[in-house]
Amino acid sequence: MDAAALWQRYQNWLYFNEGLGFYLDISRIRFDDTFVAQMEPKFAKAFDDMAALEAGAIANPDEDRMVGHYWLRDPDLAPTPELAEDVTGTLKAIEAFASQVRTGSIYPPGQERFTDVLSIGIGGSALGPQFVAQALGPDFPPLNIHFIDNTDPEGIDRTLARIDNRLATTLVIVISKSGGTPETRNGMVEVQHHFASHGLDFSKQAVAITGIDSNLDRRAKSEQWLATFPMHDWVGGRTSELSAVGLLPAALQGIDIRSILGGAREMDAATRVANLRQNPAALLALAWYAAGNGKGDKDMVILPYKDSLLLFSRYLQQLVMESLGKEKDLDGNPVYQGIAVYGNKGSTDQHAYVQQLREGVANFFVTFIEVLKDREGPSVEVEAGVTAGDYLFGLLQGTRQALYDNARDSITLTIPEVNAHNVGALIALYERAVGLYASLVNVNAYHQPGVEAGKKAAASVIKTQLQIMQVLQAASEPMNLEALANRVGAPEDIETIYKMVRHLHSNQRSVALHGNPGDPTAVRISAL
Amino acid sequence: MDAAALWQRYQNWLYFNEGLGFYLDISRIRFDDTFVAQMEPKFAKAFDDMAALEAGAIANPDEDRMVGHYWLRDPDLAPTPELAEDVTGTLKAIEAFASQVRTGSIYPPGQERFTDVLSIGIGGSALGPQFVAQALGPDFPPLNIHFIDNTDPEGIDRTLARIDNRLATTLVIVISKSGGTPETRNGMVEVQHHFASHGLDFSKQAVAITGIDSNLDRRAKSEQWLATFPMHDWVGGRTSELSAVGLLPAALQGIDIRSILGGAREMDAATRVANLRQNPAALLALAWYAAGNGKGDKDMVILPYKDSLLLFSRYLQQLVMESLGKEKDLDGNPVYQGIAVYGNKGSTDQHAYVQQLREGVANFFVTFIEVLKDREGPSVEVEAGVTAGDYLFGLLQGTRQALYDNARDSITLTIPEVNAHNVGALIALYERAVGLYASLVNVNAYHQPGVEAGKKAAASVIKTQLQIMQVLQAASEPMNLEALANRVGAPEDIETIYKMVRHLHSNQRSVALHGNPGDPTAVRISAL
Repeated sequence: MDAAALWQRYQNWLYFNEGLGFYLDISRIRFDDTFVAQMEPKFAKAFDDMAALEAGAIANPDEDRMVGHYWLRDPDLAPTPELAEDVTGTLKAIEAFASQVRTGSIYPPGQERFTDVLSIGIGGSALGPQFVAQALGPDFPPLNIHFIDNTDPEGIDRTLARIDNRLATTLVIVISKSGGTPETRNGMVEVQHHFASHGLDFSKQAVAITGIDSNLDRRAKSEQWLATFPMHDWVGGRTSELSAVGLLPAALQGIDIRSILGGAREMDAATRVANLRQNPAALLALAWYAAGNGKGDKDMVILPYKDSLLLFSRYLQQLVMESLGKEKDLDGNPVYQGIAVYGNKGSTDQHAYVQQLREGVANFFVTFIEVLKDREGPSVEVEAGVTAGDYLFGLLQGTRQALYDNARDSITLTIPEVNAHNVGALIALYERAVGLYASLVNVNAYHQPGVEAGKKAAASVIKTQLQIMQVLQAASEPMNLEALANRVGAPEDIETIYKMVRHLHSNQRSVALHGNPGDPTAVRISAL
Repeated sequence: MDAAALWQRYQNWLYFNEGLGFYLDISRIRFDDTFVAQMEPKFAKAFDDMAALEAGAIANPDEDRMVGHYWLRDPDLAPTPELAEDVTGTLKAIEAFASQVRTGSIYPPGQERFTDVLSIGIGGSALGPQFVAQALGPDFPPLNIHFIDNTDPEGIDRTLARIDNRLATTLVIVISKSGGTPETRNGMVEVQHHFASHGLDFSKQAVAITGIDSNLDRRAKSEQWLATFPMHDWVGGRTSELSAVGLLPAALQGIDIRSILGGAREMDAATRVANLRQNPAALLALAWYAAGNGKGDKDMVILPYKDSLLLFSRYLQQLVMESLGKEKDLDGNPVYQGIAVYGNKGSTDQHAYVQQLREGVANFFVTFIEVLKDREGPSVEVEAGVTAGDYLFGLLQGTRQALYDNARDSITLTIPEVNAHNVGALIALYERAVGLYASLVNVNAYHQPGVEAGKKAAASVIKTQLQIMQVLQAASEPMNLEALANRVGAPEDIETIYKMVRHLHSNQRSVALHGNPGDPTAVRISAL
């Protein structure tokens, strides 16, 4: 396509939302008018599905649930007055609590005020709060936030070491929708132990965000934690950033949560339009479909040219992959859907893997995110007439052009600046694009059966471990792996048992491994 | 394959290095003996290529350079005594300098000692130091490290804001092999300006790591910076972590750099063995080839089950993709090679995208990284007989098993613990695996022509910007985009010029945009 035709294509497809100052350009995804015409009926259905979802239909049939994250930013949309009241009531409670903590009218025992927040949660209970903290956290927030987002003992130790002598003024938020996520439970138990070992009363410094009447909810109430906030069953983990899950940590850091909600609400309105060309989320979904042939044939590389948006790709990795990565479609047919997502930030990544993007395997499309405002205040010139921000701009444009010249497609989003309003809008844009794309490819975007399966597999490993420890303690002499596996009645798990023994032995956990550990047939195992 | 056969396959392929306590398992990559037999001659050639490289052959033909990163950890291997002396001399200089800074015998003007390090560099001059700082940095390092790894003005502002009132005690390291990387130059100019605006003498707090006689080297010497350290032309950016680039920042943080080098040296010895089954790097390369059909058909998902290894996937993203992602092979034929790499950490990612890995598009293989030691000291029980670390172990094993059951392949690496020795070994392992794989697919792993092209494209955008500012300043009235593009003699660049105007206008940069900015045909542009 010559330059003039490309310029015309750019203008034809350019989406601009004046209120948000938001631009979307999908002109560098190579699709033609025939493709668009073919997609129109699919989009008509997707818009209908979305309207039904927003009206409170059961949009997550597997779990028999409504999908209501859009109500969080516009309670008037909620299908009943009770749900609307719940949203507004929770928001007010969050604001009141955060304000009382920030001003010191809620304070830790014997201390003037809270100085730090420790958030314990994983997946949807961590990625959104981490992304927003990095994107919007002020340089000197009223409370410094820390995260435990794993069940890694060393990682927990490091986080607690960094909180150091401020433990007595640290507010702990435990976030778990089900109230039973093992990683989060483990983090909580470890932190409770740490509090106890420092003579501190955990419950006087703890808050829970969890499903109503979950184990965690009941525990928090019976132990009289400082507060509990609800995680409704109509909000999924990966779309929970604008529920208490994201809003409470943000408010504690002094981030304007009404502004995040306002930006999301404005983008929701723009992406509710049942017209492909006037709906930026639909245009995004169209571009994804075109790039990957509706089957995820190409990876989605996310390149925000802004340091503060570094974690957006990780946030989207969950939102997109957990929503779309499904074995079966809504009719039960195997489809193996999904779109792989990765990326960090530009132009930094140009000095990393953009070499491959330009020249190597053509298995991806890029999403560039441009931020118009370079910084607060004027910039020094790095050479005559040129600023660091001009370079950032030039590197984005140059890379986009060079990729296109090499037949590598891209999408470009442009926002005026990174602020609460625009971050809310970005989150809402992608939530809707994922929902529409799921309709196009006919999958349930709101369940995650594979995650449940992973939990079960882990529980089975834990159970085996308890069994082998029993067997070893009862044994009179060291035995080999085969004998041990047979003794616990799990000869098919011998490999896992071998590794389990290596792990227990390495941690002085009442198990001794004798012989060359690299030779499974030669090792002998005994209780320590 | 039934459980017994799988257990046999596991044992057949298990690699164990007793000295390093390192295990590698490629049994869950589905290849057969015929494939291995076919690969043997390719490996024979790869081992020969590697021996020649280590002996000082020109292994980077495009740039007519030797490839010497293996000499950094074993100077006796260097092809000449001068090179060996250079390596040992540089190492001693780094240790002496870092020690003098840490103890305060090198100190900033008017201050007792340095408290912080600010590292300015991008790509290979940032990813290694960032990975090592996260993996090995002590909880309370003698100097706190910060990074500027981009040309984002807001990102630079944030880093400087966090250094806050410790600027007068901050040691700045500027890292650029060529001495001319624009992003790094921009960061340096911004930081110099910041120092000057605080009445501080930058040169008294600055160190350069750069190619001998580069622009940066000459500048540092003429301005009498505190020190300069060499970045040799036989060390590539993405394999420079064990040169001054990585060692100086590590030493300043109190990390044992001799131990990193020792671990790398030990792994180098293990991966020098010219026998596929006894060489873990060769086994890795074999697994990559089998998984992706020697063409990068599958993405490499890196899942370390350890928080401190979070950045390893980003480090490998560069090492693997920039090395292997090549348009042409060594004979000049178009091949579009590479392997896409992404990942963060387990088990956290199980609550993000592992849903898709388990059930969705089967376009990847996983590399699990297991760390045997959970933490320093004993663990609290999170339930009877079970620790948080047991869960981490169980989640890894369960996920690996569940993926395999769904025909998703994986590799598992096991290290005893995250320490300097083992991190050095991991770096060395992947450097060698990439080099061997490059031989298998016949590409030059040591150049990056696409990165150069990106720099040129950006320079061209910057040049156009200077031209449009000239034209606008000379113009008597606002003009439309077409007129502006014609006036600078670049009608084919009209789209870039439109965006440039948006960007300049948003930053009050002497350019005014009139009319609806979302309608390119309607906007009029003038000098401000």
